[in-house]
Amino acid sequence: MEKVDHIGIAVKSIDEAMVFYTETLGFRCTAIEEVKTQQVRVAFIDANNVKIELLESLDEKGPISKFIEKRGEGIHHIAIGVQSIEERISELKEKGIRMVDDVPKEGAGQSLVAFLHPKSGHGVLYELCEKTHMEEK
Amino acid sequence: MEKVDHIGIAVKSIDEAMVFYTETLGFRCTAIEEVKTQQVRVAFIDANNVKIELLESLDEKGPISKFIEKRGEGIHHIAIGVQSIEERISELKEKGIRMVDDVPKEGAGQSLVAFLHPKSGHGVLYELCEKTHMEEK
Repeated sequence: MEKVDHIGIAVKSIDEAMVFYTETLGFRCTAIEEVKTQQVRVAFIDANNVKIELLESLDEKGPISKFIEKRGEGIHHIAIGVQSIEERISELKEKGIRMVDDVPKEGAGQSLVAFLHPKSGHGVLYELCEKTHMEEK
Repeated sequence: MEKVDHIGIAVKSIDEAMVFYTETLGFRCTAIEEVKTQQVRVAFIDANNVKIELLESLDEKGPISKFIEKRGEGIHHIAIGVQSIEERISELKEKGIRMVDDVPKEGAGQSLVAFLHPKSGHGVLYELCEKTHMEEK
């Protein structure tokens, strides 16, 4: 049974946004890591039933910098946790869904990820996300 | 312990978007209702750990129409489920959070809702949401 793994949110500064997530909303930050292949620093917030992933750009030409430049800080994507990302990509493509990534790429939190094109998601950028670290499943 | 109650997504047409949510993502629609005070038609999608709330405008001058006109279809807000919305509003205001709604208003699914100003949410429109129907809690 698939569910929402996390909500990805683009922020200018994880350090600045963290106060809101921990002190105002009362959630807990469980990890901060860098995903150099995606040019991002990522903070995981445990919102109890779902994770919130704060994304800060490591590169002013990276995708998160460009997103913030165009739209400002805000919600970037919704990730759906899947068992087998390769099977799910094939299945979606058979259903006529347009993929941004036909081949999974490395994501944060020891995962493989692939984005659907927002046109297929009625304006929402959906991500498929498969945990590659067994204990995280 | 608070958690994410739902993710609100603005769509042009619930009927058109529904195929993606049910057939592509494989989730189930649990209810569709109209909230006339907010000028919206709302579909609840059960994404297993969290709800997705599809919002279709009933009025071309309503807030969801304006959102789509400005930014296109996409994620509109994240709602945090709270026990007492009035207490939570007071607490947030004491912490210096700017509220769009100082007084709770009627929301979908027999709830009271109040929005935080997106400036306080680092670009994200957060909603507080208290279920007023006991069985829904």
